[in-house]
Amino acid sequence: MISKEEIKSYFQGLQDEICTALAQADGKASFTEDLWERPEGGGGRSRVIQDGNVIEKGGVMFSAVWGGLHEKMLASMGLTEKVDFFATGVSIVIHPQSPRVPIIHMNVRYFEMANGTCWFGGGIDLTPHYVVEEDARWFHQQLKDVCDNHDVTYYPKFKQWADDYFFNTHRNETRGVGGIFFDYQKPDENRSKDDIFAFVKGVGEAFAPIYTYFMNKNATIPFSEQEKDFQYLRRGRYVEFNLVHDRGTKFGLETNGRTESILMSMPPMAKWIYNYQTEANSEEEKTLALLRKGVDWV
Amino acid sequence: MISKEEIKSYFQGLQDEICTALAQADGKASFTEDLWERPEGGGGRSRVIQDGNVIEKGGVMFSAVWGGLHEKMLASMGLTEKVDFFATGVSIVIHPQSPRVPIIHMNVRYFEMANGTCWFGGGIDLTPHYVVEEDARWFHQQLKDVCDNHDVTYYPKFKQWADDYFFNTHRNETRGVGGIFFDYQKPDENRSKDDIFAFVKGVGEAFAPIYTYFMNKNATIPFSEQEKDFQYLRRGRYVEFNLVHDRGTKFGLETNGRTESILMSMPPMAKWIYNYQTEANSEEEKTLALLRKGVDWV
Repeated sequence: MISKEEIKSYFQGLQDEICTALAQADGKASFTEDLWERPEGGGGRSRVIQDGNVIEKGGVMFSAVWGGLHEKMLASMGLTEKVDFFATGVSIVIHPQSPRVPIIHMNVRYFEMANGTCWFGGGIDLTPHYVVEEDARWFHQQLKDVCDNHDVTYYPKFKQWADDYFFNTHRNETRGVGGIFFDYQKPDENRSKDDIFAFVKGVGEAFAPIYTYFMNKNATIPFSEQEKDFQYLRRGRYVEFNLVHDRGTKFGLETNGRTESILMSMPPMAKWIYNYQTEANSEEEKTLALLRKGVDWV
Repeated sequence: MISKEEIKSYFQGLQDEICTALAQADGKASFTEDLWERPEGGGGRSRVIQDGNVIEKGGVMFSAVWGGLHEKMLASMGLTEKVDFFATGVSIVIHPQSPRVPIIHMNVRYFEMANGTCWFGGGIDLTPHYVVEEDARWFHQQLKDVCDNHDVTYYPKFKQWADDYFFNTHRNETRGVGGIFFDYQKPDENRSKDDIFAFVKGVGEAFAPIYTYFMNKNATIPFSEQEKDFQYLRRGRYVEFNLVHDRGTKFGLETNGRTESILMSMPPMAKWIYNYQTEANSEEEKTLALLRKGVDWV
């Protein structure tokens, strides 16, 4: 059975591979690295890329932290006694230069408690500034393939989870075209820890081929000033989701996580216009109409 | 004793007066108005000004809403039985064009429950992109004068409340140079409802003279591209405060308030740079050093 040390090493290697692939596809910018330590135990390796040909601002973050469980976390688990934990993962958000290239997010994580309980979580979701149905279908097909390799019940379940999770309730719209999201995946009599880890590896390794596909295909499509402006507005919604609703962000900020690593997900620049309305039959209107739960992309 | 209807009318008149004063000082842009109704009772008059000479984006919002208390609000008050409420107020956030003109926020509000309990709340706080000590001192002196007209214990108490409230814990910095903040000001044997209302009126009426003073004095000061960029970063922190910490914003979004009115506080444009560092001995560094609690400005 895979150990926490092996999972940690795997995630570090995954971070390396993804950074290499992204920098190569970008062709201009490279990653800078910040190593940080957590006083209570563990630390991280934050890698950020800025002002590239394709990527305007992106982070590929690795961390492995341990120690006593924060009281907020204890409370959220209904625990009253102190218990040690170990958590490791890779988190990615990429904001591209072009409104024709989608924003993407990926996360894989592992959590273990001193009492022996452990689980995996993660997901990938895509936030196109302009929804291209063919691209969304292709994206979901890649995720379905990864899921189906392990369990045919995963894709429908985790796709719905993403629809529900990546939802800006106060806007009544999804963050983007969704993807997959899963949490609390614990080993049991039907599924070993190694089985779940194999699936999580599949998700992590799908990221670079998926995103470099969009980088290569879409970064050279021309766009107008108006389309660039719409990108800034959509980034504003991304900010709203991450600061108002995203559990990982809220939890990180509440528990004294490293703020700069947590908020690497913020876009380089975003705009807000009061009561913005799309024009009838515009591409913007078409995009907003597709930002809803339950779209069957495959 | 002043009635809720009279308070409501007063707040509507206050909104009118403030909008007139701001539009006049701006000299270019004027307010557009959206009337909205709340299905459960009441509604509002949202007024927004954009692309002015001095003001880039600002909102002066009036609302008066009533009905059954939302379950989140009941829970936060430790109540289990349903009870009707009435709430009215004016909320303002102004984002200026120039980094030399501060962002400002003002709120005055009144809340009443069917069981007879009622209270006032409110405050004014200033968020300069660049802290000018003379301006911060002048600002706090105006607020102290308003407070001292009613009760000499108000300013120290409400100034500290603002320091504690307008604080970005995850950045370990105040939102700006503070101001005054107060809540749950209930009438009792020592202080009538009319007394408290007179103070709240003082706060509301102080807003226009204070902000038009800064508009007139600072809008023509020249600034560089670098200073404009710092303004965008500081606006990013304003976004973080409002979406992560501000109780009014969180509560409004959670209880199905009118999203566009609540998020009028968002800046027209904001930026995030990973791990931004100021240069040693720069004006930016000096500003950040002053964004802390407990600075005695008067």
